[in-house]
Order: sequence, then structure tokens, then C-alpha cells
Amino acid sequence: MLTKTHALPYYAVIFTSVLTEVQEGYGEIAAEMVRLAQLQDGFLGIESARDQIGITVSYWKDEASILQWKNVMEHKLAQKLGYEKFYASFNVRIAKVERAYSFEK
Amino acid sequence: MLTKTHALPYYAVIFTSVLTEVQEGYGEIAAEMVRLAQLQDGFLGIESARDQIGITVSYWKDEASILQWKNVMEHKLAQKLGYEKFYASFNVRIAKVERAYSFEK
Repeated sequence: MLTKTHALPYYAVIFTSVLTEVQEGYGEIAAEMVRLAQLQDGFLGIESARDQIGITVSYWKDEASILQWKNVMEHKLAQKLGYEKFYASFNVRIAKVERAYSFEK
Repeated sequence: MLTKTHALPYYAVIFTSVLTEVQEGYGEIAAEMVRLAQLQDGFLGIESARDQIGITVSYWKDEASILQWKNVMEHKLAQKLGYEKFYASFNVRIAKVERAYSFEK
């Protein structure tokens, strides 16, 4: 369920959000965006959790991969619905992963 | 519930984890670590969610602040318990936030 680490440096898109009460169709669209993201060049992995807020961190080879994904048609449509219907608020942060370590029991 | 964005660049510590079944005391320790982190120099904010996995992203002014927090005595004790009891696996990634944007309805 956790992604593996990758050769440094790489990029993380940290997306944190609060949903509105209008959630019809949200689950399907979110799942489809994960499926599509995984097909993109430069996609490395994704980790996601939600309780009071949602946090999705996707990992990418470089900034060009992130920009390409941002402009994929289906993703642009999903972003539009996000603004209009699904999100009360969100933050997007693009960050360069400089150090990383893992633990496994 | 979401943190505000801050003057760029700043740092994010992306901590993703899977818990073991030994959770006695975990909630109290986690809450205490959030309380202590907020008192540290250079602390900017924290966002956290858990369902199948947990994701906590804390935001810091610079790498020095992150290193100082890592070495605070109570945090070191909590880390030791984390390795021994609470975490089946985790990833820690230290990342420089280079771009950010926010949306609020």
C-alpha cells in the first residue's frame, strides 16, 4: 500500500483537500484519475488517505511529467469538476524530494 | 483543517505509514508529537489523514528546523516506540516545496 522509494531526486505533488457535501460521482472519478496517472510517462507512485481531510501524494520523475499529467484532457475535466463541485478547499504543493528513507518490519 | 501556504521555498516532511496491530498508547503519543512539533522553531504547519495508510505532511522553514525536531528527546523516544511497536512499515521523504497554489470556495 506504500509506494517504494526511487532514485533521488524526484518530485512529489502533495494534494490536500476538504470535500464539499456534493459527492455524487467523486469516487469513480478519483479512481479513474489514479488509473490514468499510472499510465503517464514519469509516474512513480501514489499514496492516499482520507479522514477529515484528504491527502494524496503522487510521485513523478521530473517536473515535465507533472506538467504533462496536469494537461491530460480527462484530468482537466476532472479538475474542472473538482473546482465546481467536489472541493471546498485544497492545497497543491510541488516539491523536490531530496532525501528519503524507509522502514519495514 | 488545511494549513495555509507559506513563502516559497520551504520544506515538507512526507511521512507515510502502515500501523501494526499493537496500538496501545499510539493516539496519545501521536497527539503529543503534534503538540511538540508546533512549538519548534521553523514549524509552519501539519496536515494528517489516515484510512488504510496514514499520511502526515509537516511543513518547515528549512532543513535545519527538520533536523532539530528529529533530535528533540521526546521525539527520539517516540521514534524508538514507532520502530519497535507501532509501525509495520513507513516512508519518510524530505522535499523542498518549490511551487504551491490553493483553492477555497
